[in-house]
Order: sequence, then structure tokens, then C-alpha cells
Amino acid sequence: MTAADDDTGLLAPGWAGSAAASATGDTAFLRALLDAEAALTRAQAALGLAPAAAATAVTEAARGARFDARELAGRARAGGNPVIPLVAGLTEAVGEEHGPYVHRGATSQDIMDTAMMLVAVRGLAPALADLERAARALAGLAAAHRDTAMPGRTLTQHAVPTTFGLKAAGWRSLVLDARDRLTAVRDALPAQLGGAAGTLAAFGAYGAGDPLELPGAYARELGLAEPVLPWHTLRTPVADLAGALAFTAGALGKLAADVLVLGRTEIAEVAEGSGGGSSAMPHKANPVRATLIAAAARRAPQLAAVLYGSLTAEDERPAGAWHAEWEPLRELLRLVGGAARGAAELAEALRVFPDRMREHLGLTHGLVVSERLSAELAPVLGRARAGELLTALARRTWDEGRPLAELLAAEPELKGLDLGDLTDPARYTGSAGALTDRALERR
Amino acid sequence: MTAADDDTGLLAPGWAGSAAASATGDTAFLRALLDAEAALTRAQAALGLAPAAAATAVTEAARGARFDARELAGRARAGGNPVIPLVAGLTEAVGEEHGPYVHRGATSQDIMDTAMMLVAVRGLAPALADLERAARALAGLAAAHRDTAMPGRTLTQHAVPTTFGLKAAGWRSLVLDARDRLTAVRDALPAQLGGAAGTLAAFGAYGAGDPLELPGAYARELGLAEPVLPWHTLRTPVADLAGALAFTAGALGKLAADVLVLGRTEIAEVAEGSGGGSSAMPHKANPVRATLIAAAARRAPQLAAVLYGSLTAEDERPAGAWHAEWEPLRELLRLVGGAARGAAELAEALRVFPDRMREHLGLTHGLVVSERLSAELAPVLGRARAGELLTALARRTWDEGRPLAELLAAEPELKGLDLGDLTDPARYTGSAGALTDRALERR
Amino acid sequence: MTAADDDTGLLAPGWAGSAAASATGDTAFLRALLDAEAALTRAQAALGLAPAAAATAVTEAARGARFDARELAGRARAGGNPVIPLVAGLTEAVGEEHGPYVHRGATSQDIMDTAMMLVAVRGLAPALADLERAARALAGLAAAHRDTAMPGRTLTQHAVPTTFGLKAAGWRSLVLDARDRLTAVRDALPAQLGGAAGTLAAFGAYGAGDPLELPGAYARELGLAEPVLPWHTLRTPVADLAGALAFTAGALGKLAADVLVLGRTEIAEVAEGSGGGSSAMPHKANPVRATLIAAAARRAPQLAAVLYGSLTAEDERPAGAWHAEWEPLRELLRLVGGAARGAAELAEALRVFPDRMREHLGLTHGLVVSERLSAELAPVLGRARAGELLTALARRTWDEGRPLAELLAAEPELKGLDLGDLTDPARYTGSAGALTDRALERR
Amino acid sequence: MTAADDDTGLLAPGWAGSAAASATGDTAFLRALLDAEAALTRAQAALGLAPAAAATAVTEAARGARFDARELAGRARAGGNPVIPLVAGLTEAVGEEHGPYVHRGATSQDIMDTAMMLVAVRGLAPALADLERAARALAGLAAAHRDTAMPGRTLTQHAVPTTFGLKAAGWRSLVLDARDRLTAVRDALPAQLGGAAGTLAAFGAYGAGDPLELPGAYARELGLAEPVLPWHTLRTPVADLAGALAFTAGALGKLAADVLVLGRTEIAEVAEGSGGGSSAMPHKANPVRATLIAAAARRAPQLAAVLYGSLTAEDERPAGAWHAEWEPLRELLRLVGGAARGAAELAEALRVFPDRMREHLGLTHGLVVSERLSAELAPVLGRARAGELLTALARRTWDEGRPLAELLAAEPELKGLDLGDLTDPARYTGSAGALTDRALERR
Repeated sequence: MTAADDDTGLLAPGWAGSAAASATGDTAFLRALLDAEAALTRAQAALGLAPAAAATAVTEAARGARFDARELAGRARAGGNPVIPLVAGLTEAVGEEHGPYVHRGATSQDIMDTAMMLVAVRGLAPALADLERAARALAGLAAAHRDTAMPGRTLTQHAVPTTFGLKAAGWRSLVLDARDRLTAVRDALPAQLGGAAGTLAAFGAYGAGDPLELPGAYARELGLAEPVLPWHTLRTPVADLAGALAFTAGALGKLAADVLVLGRTEIAEVAEGSGGGSSAMPHKANPVRATLIAAAARRAPQLAAVLYGSLTAEDERPAGAWHAEWEPLRELLRLVGGAARGAAELAEALRVFPDRMREHLGLTHGLVVSERLSAELAPVLGRARAGELLTALARRTWDEGRPLAELLAAEPELKGLDLGDLTDPARYTGSAGALTDRALERR
Repeated sequence: MTAADDDTGLLAPGWAGSAAASATGDTAFLRALLDAEAALTRAQAALGLAPAAAATAVTEAARGARFDARELAGRARAGGNPVIPLVAGLTEAVGEEHGPYVHRGATSQDIMDTAMMLVAVRGLAPALADLERAARALAGLAAAHRDTAMPGRTLTQHAVPTTFGLKAAGWRSLVLDARDRLTAVRDALPAQLGGAAGTLAAFGAYGAGDPLELPGAYARELGLAEPVLPWHTLRTPVADLAGALAFTAGALGKLAADVLVLGRTEIAEVAEGSGGGSSAMPHKANPVRATLIAAAARRAPQLAAVLYGSLTAEDERPAGAWHAEWEPLRELLRLVGGAARGAAELAEALRVFPDRMREHLGLTHGLVVSERLSAELAPVLGRARAGELLTALARRTWDEGRPLAELLAAEPELKGLDLGDLTDPARYTGSAGALTDRALERR
Repeated sequence: MTAADDDTGLLAPGWAGSAAASATGDTAFLRALLDAEAALTRAQAALGLAPAAAATAVTEAARGARFDARELAGRARAGGNPVIPLVAGLTEAVGEEHGPYVHRGATSQDIMDTAMMLVAVRGLAPALADLERAARALAGLAAAHRDTAMPGRTLTQHAVPTTFGLKAAGWRSLVLDARDRLTAVRDALPAQLGGAAGTLAAFGAYGAGDPLELPGAYARELGLAEPVLPWHTLRTPVADLAGALAFTAGALGKLAADVLVLGRTEIAEVAEGSGGGSSAMPHKANPVRATLIAAAARRAPQLAAVLYGSLTAEDERPAGAWHAEWEPLRELLRLVGGAARGAAELAEALRVFPDRMREHLGLTHGLVVSERLSAELAPVLGRARAGELLTALARRTWDEGRPLAELLAAEPELKGLDLGDLTDPARYTGSAGALTDRALERR
Repeated sequence: MTAADDDTGLLAPGWAGSAAASATGDTAFLRALLDAEAALTRAQAALGLAPAAAATAVTEAARGARFDARELAGRARAGGNPVIPLVAGLTEAVGEEHGPYVHRGATSQDIMDTAMMLVAVRGLAPALADLERAARALAGLAAAHRDTAMPGRTLTQHAVPTTFGLKAAGWRSLVLDARDRLTAVRDALPAQLGGAAGTLAAFGAYGAGDPLELPGAYARELGLAEPVLPWHTLRTPVADLAGALAFTAGALGKLAADVLVLGRTEIAEVAEGSGGGSSAMPHKANPVRATLIAAAARRAPQLAAVLYGSLTAEDERPAGAWHAEWEPLRELLRLVGGAARGAAELAEALRVFPDRMREHLGLTHGLVVSERLSAELAPVLGRARAGELLTALARRTWDEGRPLAELLAAEPELKGLDLGDLTDPARYTGSAGALTDRALERR
């Protein structure tokens, strides 16, 4: 039964049902909060600040106790975060003897921030796997179409030929850039532990010989990095996530933008493997994957902007900047997770139509190779005469709709030149193949 | 039972549990989708395009049928929006005879956009009521503190005196500006009806004499405005909502920013009626309401930016710009709804400490009225001499920590002046009272 | 001679050289600052607070004195705004007698905000004129192409036919929405006058009987609206400008997005009157107007977000929120002014190719009217049989590349139907003509 | 003489006159464009594709020729970028013989992008130097105030004590994070070279044996990194700059936010070395440095959002996404350059008032150490009794305004405890000193 105000993904076909969504939902976040609390007690036990039995009790209670995310959400309002009611509940669940060791010495933000980092690590796992899938599929496309000539388009107009292989290799290079950035950020995500104002003072009051050992022990329990300083208001980890996630959304957005252009009814050089249906037109195959990725790419930069804005966090805990991070960071993880899933599916099933590409190379009646002719006729005719001739023929080609090759063949000056080669768009793809090879060397 | 990926508000203490949240959740959105479908069939029946029995059947099915938001969310992915599976389900629920009249002639976007407008109208109702509450409470504060002098602060420093009444009147004026903008936008929100490409063509094919009558009839069924044109890619209503909602968040953000400053431990001129507790410090009373409003104000502008960006919507339905609107618009409605609730509570329970304000007027040892002295001593002493004297005394005041009034009293040139009046900060509040009165005349 | 750090528009082909740029540049801003100072003294003279001779002297000095924007920019750093050094310079220029009446009772923000409003009013004038030009040209296109059928496109795919007239009418409706919003906001832009902390206190100290009369007198001198309250930290005017400007950029962005799609080499249904050349390809005609408008539309939402964010302005003058407004507001005015200029030129010179549109209606082999056939064959064949037949024929049409009309003609069941009419895309434009007419009624 | 529409920094006291402004202005950008053109011809000469004399001629013309940024800006409109008119001018300046070797084989974007990278490298140099200055000064503050106790503040309220040293060490750690991110990004900024559609095809047509050698040679001429692929629409370098610059603005924004809070009239624990004056109040010392940094930090995230959005760049050169990058990237460089200058000055001249900090530790009458007492009295009194007692005393402390230490001393149960130590806020700074030491180890 869904409560009236729940968000189950109805407005989010881009990420609904994805592994990233499951890894970042309220239940998953609640799990991460409980993991953080349990790890804190275990770390204290490891340093002799709490009995081993307390660590066991808290760990078991955190695993077994039935907390309800919605109920906590309701109770979170009074104090402004869900850790306060959670600690009350966990303390009760643990019982009188071990209760004092729950959350001991910590502040709510220690647990919230640590949980957010855990959720980020867990939510990034399926996203990274999907990026690898996408990269593999794109490598396959790049290799298969290394020499598939197609129009290069600039400012919406045909420019000179390129290859589909180079295009796919470019998409892949962005996917790998995203993977590298996300991986580097993920591997550095730290646990948070500072206590009320980031001095670790309470741990000393509870008897820690060297409270500085505690954050490391705690981080190790959770598989997170050890922080150099408590980062309650030094938000580097959040900002780094923001940047890498916005980058990934944009990188996939480039792929989606190209698929949307190339799949237009008039162009139809590619098509999604299984287009989405339409409620009104039985014949339509909509590029739904690309559309949903494009939608994610429109939103991610602004979510990242909120997080970059939260770097400006006054005092030892800010009144608003921190609270403004929670939903945008989760939403970024979901959007990127959903977009990565979509990109993997898109890349694996993309249909490519080389004949259409070849056909389109003729749309400008051969002017798509005029750059080459300018270069190669100059030594033959002299630069001035070559320019003059080409300008005149280009105009006639355009006005009369006749192939440039045909007009060139009629020019006595050009006898003896291999006009077939010179005017073949497929032979003017430059270093596209070599660039594709070079790009595919990257792992 | 909450599914793993549901969002129940755990990360959103600002809006969790609010009326705005209930009015905009997935269940509420599903309700609006069904309302839109039912209204469409009824409007067609009203114009003779469908049997009355079909209208009744669809209306009843829409009311009674048990659709599950989460299940629809899952099925929405294939086509990119939840209307496609919903129509399938509704058609089945209606039965063979009336099924053909479900969604007839419409496109998914007609229903999604209309539902979004319904959700906006419904979600704004509690927000507007809370803004009215806030405005009333602020009017009370402004009237009660019309003459409560306090330091005016610019660039964090004391400048000249102002009154708490003028400050509260200013907050209220922003709240009323927000109310007026939201109300105007809400009252103009249109239904959406255009069919597959916005030409209403299918309705003609189904026999409508004048398809242009249909959008009006449909809008009337729903209490929305009649659109002049289908607005599938003319997104004025969404952009107008974005602007008014971002404005409201910012307007309440000003109130919150001031409360956060004035409630600092060192200042303590105001306090929230019931501050939030802290998990670590029993004595702390955190300004939780203001904090959560401030967090909303940090996020709203970027959400609005996404919506303004979606004005750039190509073709008759865009591949991404439309899909990018759904979650940000809902999130804006929730953030603003939650912030309005918080502002009403904050304003109604705000505690004001005039004695602290008065005390702080002395913190600059009287320099807070130096502007007045410059103006009023010039006619007495001559402008040059007055400036010279005041500069000298200001320096001594600051360096010696002695009251300016005391130093002035020792100046023989100033005998005969009513220095008590001239140096009393509470008598240098200018037109603050009159401005407050004028602002309170607005309803 | 250009200083090394000047911005002359080299990176801004969208607005460089426009009337909006001239009206908002540093020289124009300096002019507005001087206008504000002169108006302030005149308003005081009008109320008997300053000698008429002082008003004349300040007005003349403001008109004649040679201030240098760059030099003021350098000196602005110390105090954080250019009014402080400007007042020093103006006071000196006016001479000893009248110097005391320069800036008397005001604060820097009074002058900066008022100047910004003046610059906005002045910068909007050419933008509004260009929007009117664009609207006129679009009305002409809509009327001329009222019945020019073309493919309606949704999610990049052909859906059902529409008309170019309806598309142009839609563009125009957005342009008029923008005009209406900008005009309404402009007409309400207020002067700013509050003194050091917004209480008008200094004016009383200088002898004003009723300081509340002064803001009105001042506003009238400048042709701005009278403010109800000083709005140093009640930033409704700035937020309203942000919204209307972002709206306008997006509205023009829709036009640009469509022109970019429709002008693609493969589509070529429209072309810019004079495309931009390319440095590498002599034959290319780039859609430069549309490109530069599209670039502006990508930037405006984020600039508006900064301004909405500045609503959260603490105290009587904030430490940062105000300063963050200046450049983004000016940049918005410039981007919108440049985009309006571009849109007017684009609309006036747009070349439309109805033959290409007609040709493209055949690209789906007639499936573009399948919606109509579904609707109209059902009464003839029964709903089930009609659906079955159309699904089968649609598949054959697609697979065999044969026109749907041809396959339909071979069906004995359909003898006697006017298949020529039923399958003509140009006769399935629904209410596009009537909607165009209705939209053009708006002035 | 300044043209009417020039921007000389009048609205930008944050960066006007800075080295970053000079390094990124239109003149500097023009210089970078010319450097890129000259390097291109030199690289071709180095590979035997152009005569050495041509390389010399182009290099000299690029150095000596008098181009005017404003004039180019005006001519840039036709083609949408300034390279087209620049190439025309440079070709003419070089003369007939060498003219053909100007810009040969390149596209406008090769030169624009390369120039942008050069400008970024040059603009970052002073910013990085200022970050180093700031870090050094902050290290000095951290060391000097390693043990200066002050209130730790969370959600605007006193929490537990911290030290000013730890705060300064935290500021420094953010500055170093910013430095590291900027440096890493800068060192990887690549030259751009791809030709019309990114295939390097023209270079082959002009005779290059292996065109892939050219980008490397070109990059080396300019001191930029060699690109693996042309990145006309693979915008990783721009996005990486966006992220690192937004990070830096936010990192400095944290410093500014704290200085603004701590410098408030009521708090006055720190003050800017030389505050800015006010036009209305002779005694005011405004925190102008911090204010201008705060303003930059409010704007940078949205500028970065535009750049992240431009990752979504369709085709081989996009119609708008690329053009939308130029001004925001430059503005980010300027804002960050100005903020870094301001931060260096702020840190070097910051005045710190330990006595005020100490005094404020008493504002909560000792409750600032209640956390410690909870921890340390529990073993003495038993947990339940300790909690009961402290709750009761805390209430009395607050209600009666009496020091907690005094009330504790009256409790017979606590005889024998060193209450002086236990209740001294300066002795409850936890690991602040050790954390400071650890943070200062980082170089």
C-alpha cells in the first residue's frame, strides 16, 4: 500500500525500477543510517571505548529492528533530520544495558553524511557497471563501423564526411571519462566523524586515549576512506560527487542528442533497438531511451549547482546548506543510474543503417567534398584559378541540382585527374579510421 | 509496506507530511490522470461525440478502479510516460462497449499536462492558505512592534536604527507578493488538449462538428482555463509556475535568513517558538523551521531553471524537454508547500525580544545615530566644524569605548541642544512607523 | 583604445553591437547612476529640502562631467560598489556650495538599484521593439502558410500532419507572451529610496516634513514607479525581471530550436534568409541567427536562478546577495536584447519551402494519416476489423515501402470510399487553420 | 575612450583590475586567437606542410598586426564567431605569398577552443598564485591560534567549543583542495585540432603523410596537452574546468561566509584588515572582501551548470551549446580569479580577537560544556542520576542566568571533582589541536 505522498517513480520513467533507484530509496537510506550507527559502536568497541557486547547488540538491532522510513520521516521534522528519531528508536531496541553506546559521542551529521556516502557508493555500483556495458557496446560499434562513411554535420548542416566509427568512438571516450571520474570520486568518499562541532571532544570525554584513531576505525568498518578532518562544513566529497555525476549525465546526454538527431524520420541513419509505442499512432517507434537520457542531462547540471552552492556552509554546521544537499544528491544518483542503464541498453541494441548514411553523403550533390577539391586542385590549376572554378561550379551544382562530379568531368582542365576518387565522399574521411583505432586503445 | 526505492520523505523534513506533499504525491498524480481521462470522455459526451453512458462508465471506472502507481511507474518505461499503461488499464476496466471512448482522440501529453495542472492547482491550495496565515501573523507582529527600535544592519554591520515592525512589514509584503503571483498563475492554468500533433484532427475524424469547442468543454469539466492553442511545446503555463514558485521560495527565504541571523546565540533578538532539539546538546534550541525554509530557498531557483530551460522544446512534442519538467515541477510544489507551512508556523510562534534589540542599539556606543548628528549639527555648527567634531568624537568613542552621548555632552558648543533626544537611537527610526502603516494597508 | 580587460563583445556575437548592448554597457550604467543622483537632488529641491540652484548644479554636473567608467571600476573595489567614488567625484564637480546636496540622505544602494531599474527600462525598449517586429513577421508567416501542410513531429518522429501556419502562430503566441510579461514588469519597476537602512531617517534629519513624499517625487523625476517600501532586501522587482527575461529567452529559444531542426540538410523545410558562412566550407549556409538565440536560451535560466537566489537577502542590505545581482541582470538584458534582435531578423527573412514539407508528408508512405483511418474506417468495417486491417496494412506499407493508399485501394471492403481524400495528408490537418485564425486575433 | 557597450568592470568590483581580468579580457582573448593561428602554421611547417618562411610570416603578423577586438566583435556576428573575420584579416596582413598557409586545414572551432584553453591556462596562473598566498596565510593563522578556543556553532547556535586554529585549518584544506583540482585540470587542458568535422581530412588533402602527428606538434607549440581525439563535441576539458572553478568559488565562499558571521557587530571575533567605507555612515567598516567573495560564490555554480549543460552537444559541432560556453567560462575564470585575490588579501590581513571568542564561550552560562559533563558525571553518579541532575541544572542555568559551574559547585554529590577543569570551555576543545596539526602537514 502506497501512502498518498509517496514517490514510487511514476514521474520518473528514466530511473523507476532501476538498481540505482533501489540502492538509493528511503529504505536503502535507512539501511545506510543503521549501518553507520552500528559501525560507530563497533569502532568504539575495537578501541576499547565500548564493550564488545554493546557492539554486537547494536549491530544486531540495526540489522533486525523494524524501522519504518515513513514514520521516521514524519518524526524528522521536529529536529530537522531523521537521525534524531532513529537514535531514539535504536537505543530503545538495544535495551537499557547497551543503549548508552548507541550514537555515543556522535552528532546527527556524522551519521547522515556517512550514510549519504554509503548510499553513493552503493548507488554508483550499478551505474558504473552500466557504463562499462555501454562502453563495450560502443567499442563494438566503433570497430564495426570504423570505415562507415557518413556526413559530418556542423551547425545542423553537412560539412565534410566523417565515419560512424569515429562518432561511436567519441561517445565511448566520454563514457570512459565519466567512468574514470566517478570511480576516482567514489574511491575517495570518506566517512564522517567529528562529534558536535567537529573536534571529536566527546570521545575524549568518554575516555578515548587518542580520539583521532576513531574516525579511521569507523571508516574501515564501512569500507569508506578515512577523513583528514571532519568535513561537516568542508564539503569536498559532496562537491566532487556533484561534478562527476553532472559530467556523466552530460556525457550520456551527448550520446542521446546524437541518437535523437540521427534517428529523425528524415535522417533515419540509426534507430533504437526497440522504440517506444505511442498512444495515438500505431506505427511510431519513439526513441524513448534517448529521450529519457536527454531529460536527465537537462536536469543534472542544476542539481549539481545546488550542491556546489552548498560549499558555502557557515559555522560548524550550516542552517540550510547541508539540508539542501540531501534530495539533490540522491536525485543525481538516480538520474545518472537510470541514464547509465538506458545508455547501456541503447548502445547494445542500436541499429545502424550504413546505406542511409552513404545516401546522405550525396545530398549536397558532392559539395561535401569541396574542401578536398580546394586543397587538391590548387597545385594543379593554381590557387586562384582553382578557387574561381570551384566557386562557379559549386554555385551551378547548387542551383541546378547536378552532381559536382558531373560538372567537374566536363572541365577540360581536369582531364587526367582521378575525379572518381577525388569526389567520392567515402574516400574523404581523413584520419577518422586512425583516430578510431587510437581511441579504442584506451581501456 | 514501502518498496525499496520509494521516497517517503525521509530526506525531506521540509515537506514530509505536509498537505502539499499529499496533494502532489504519486497517488495524487494518478488521481489527476484519471480525472483528466474521465473529463475528456464527459466533454466528448457533452458535445455528442460519445454516448452519455460511456462518460458515466469512464467516470466511474476512473473513480473506482484500483490502479497502482508503482506498477504503472514500472510499465511507463517502455513508452516513456505513465499514460500509455494507464489508458490500457482504464480501457479494460471500462469494458468492451465503452472502451473505445477512453482517451479517444487524445495524446498522452494531453493527459499528463492536464494532470500536472490539476496537481498544481491542488498543491497550491494549502500553500496559499499557509501564506495567508503567515501574512496575518506577520501583520500582527508588524503592528505590535511598530515602534520597537532595533539596529538596522547592512553588510553585517550596524548602520542606523530601524524597527522590528518595519522588518515584519517587509516580510509580509514579500509574502503578499508571492501570494499574488501564485494566485494569478494558478487562475490561468489551462487544460491541455490537442491530440497527436496539436491540431485536434482526430476529434474531427471521430465526427466533431467543431473540434475547437472540445478544449473549452474539457477545461470546464476540470475547473481549468481554456487554452487558446494546444501548448504541447508552448510552455507558458509551466514557465509561469516556475517563476511564481521560485519567487515564493525566495520570498520565504528572506524571512528565514533574517530569523537565522536574529536568532544567533550572540544576537538572540528573536527565537523560534519551539526550536528543534539536538542529539548531542540538551540545551540547544535550533531554528529548525527557518533552516528548512532556507534549504528550500537554496534549491528552488535551480528547479525553476530547468523548467525555464524546457521552454526550448522542439517540434510538436520534444524529446526530453517535456520529460524533464515532471519531477522538478512537483518538487517545486512540494518545497514551496513545505516552506509555506513552515513560514506560517514560524510567524505565528516567533518570539521577539525588544529588550535585546534595545540593548544592541548601544553596541556602537551611539555611533548608530552618527548620521543624524551629521545632519542636525551642521546647521548649528556649520558643516565643516560639525564634520570635524563628529569625526573626532567618533574616533574617541570607538577607541575609548565611551558613549558618544557622553562625549557630546562635554562639548561646550553643544550646550542647549537636546542631546538626549539627538542621541537616542529609538528616536532615530525615521519613517519606519509610517512605512509600516502604509505597508499594512495592503490586503 | 581598449584596455586589456575590457569586454567589447568579442565572445558575444549574439548581442555585440545591438541597441540593447549600448543601452546596458558601462557607459550607459554610469549615465543611469548620474541620472539617479541628479533626480535625487531635484526631488529634494521640489520638496524644499534643497535649493533650486543646487538641483540645477547637480543636474548640469551629472550631464556634463566627464567620469570614466573604468576609473570608477577600479576605485569601486574599496567600498564594494561604484557609487562611493562617483559621489566623491560628483560632489567635487558640483563645487563647495552645492556639494552638500549631492546624494544627501541616500545610501549607495538607493542609487545603484535605481540605476539598474533605469538601465532595465532603457535596455528593454529595443528588445520590446524587436519582439513586436518578430511578432508581425510571424503573423505574416502564419497567415501566408495557414494551409501549408507539413509533418507534425513528436519525439523526433512524424506523427500526424500539421501546418506551418499553426507552427508560426505558436511561435508568435510565445513572443506575445514574452512581450506582455516584459511590459508588465517594466511598467512596475520602482525607484529605490530608503537611506542607510531603509527608514528614510536622514531625510527627516535634513528637515523633511514628510519624508514619505520623497520617494514618489524622486520616482517621478525618473519615470519609474513609486515604491511602497524601500526594497533594499525585498527584491521583487529584480526577481520579476529575472522571470520575464528568462521567459523571453526561452520563448525565442523555441523558435530557434524549430528553425534549427527544420533547416537541417536532410529536412530543409526552412532556411535562414542569410546564413552565416563557414571558414572551411564555401557552400555552407549556417543558421547563425537561430544558433545564437539557442545559445542565449541555454544561459538565461541559470542567470535568472542567481537572481531568484538573491531574494534570500539578509538584514537591511545583504553581504553578497545584492552584489551578485549586478552582472547577471545586465547579462540577461543583453542576451534577451540580442536574441530579440536575432529573432526579428530571423522571422522577417525566413525562407519557407512548402514543397519540401509536402514531400516529407510522404516519407511514412501514408502512415502519417493512420490515425484518421483508424477513426473513419471503424464505422464502416466495425472497430475490430478496421483495427486488424490497418495493423496488417501498416506493417506491409513499412516493410515493402509501398504507399498505404495503394494497399488500401486493393481492398475490396473499401470500395466506394473516397480513399484519395482519406489518405491525403494535406486534408488531415484538423483544426490547424481555425486555431491559427484564433491565435492571430490576439494583438 | 570606452565605447558605450563596453564592460570595463564597473559592475564587477570583485574582479575589476585583477590579473585574472587582464588575462581573460577581449584583448587577451584576441592574443590567444592569434597565438593559436601562428602555432598552427608553425606546426605545419615543422611537419613539412608549410614553408618555414610562412610560419615566420604568420607568427610575426600575429604578433605585430593591429587587430581591434571591438571591430572583430562586430564582424563576428555574420558567421557567429570571431575567427572568421580574424582569419581574413590575418591572411591579408601576411600577404599573398604566405596567405594560403594561414588557418590552413583548420576550422574556426579549432582556433576558438585552443584560444579558450590558452586563456584558461593564463587566467589560472594568478588565481593559483593567490590561492597559495591564501593557504600560506591561513596556515599561519591556524598555527598561531592552534589553541584559541571559541564557540563551535551549529544551526546558528553555540554547540561545544572549538578552536580558531581548527577553523583556519579547515579553510586552508578547502583552499588546497581547490588548488589541487585546478592544477590537475589545467595541466591536462588540450589544444584543439580536427578540421571541419574532426577528421583531420584537410591536412591529408594538403599533403600530410600522417595527419595524426599534427595535433601533437600544434599542442607542443602552445604548451597545451595533445588531445587523443578532436573534442569539438566531446567537451571534457570545458566540463572539468567548470567543476574545478565552481569548486574553488565555493571553497572560498566558505571562508567568506565564516568571516561574515564572525565579523558581525554583535560577534566581532574577527575583522577584515581594512574594511570598506560606507557612503552614509562614517564609522562603518564593511567586510568588503568577504562580501565580494560571497557574491562570486553565489554565481559560480550556475555558470558551471551552463557548461555542464553544454556537454550535450549534438553532431560534429553543435548549434548553440558551443556558443553558450564562451562567456560563462570566461566569467568563471574572472570570478574565481577575483575571489582568489580577495581571499589572499583577506587571509593575510584578517584580524582575530581571541578575547571576544573567550568571552562568547560564556554566553550560554557554561552549557557549552554540558556534553562533557554528561559524559564525565555518568561514571561518578550513575548515568540516570547524572542525566537527571544535568537536566535540572541546565534549566536553572538558563532560567536564572547563573553559571552552570556555580550551580554545580553547590551540589554535595560533586565534591572532590575538579569542577574548574570540567566546566572550562577552553579545556573542552577535544582533538582540535591535533586535527589542526594533522591538517597542516599537508602541503
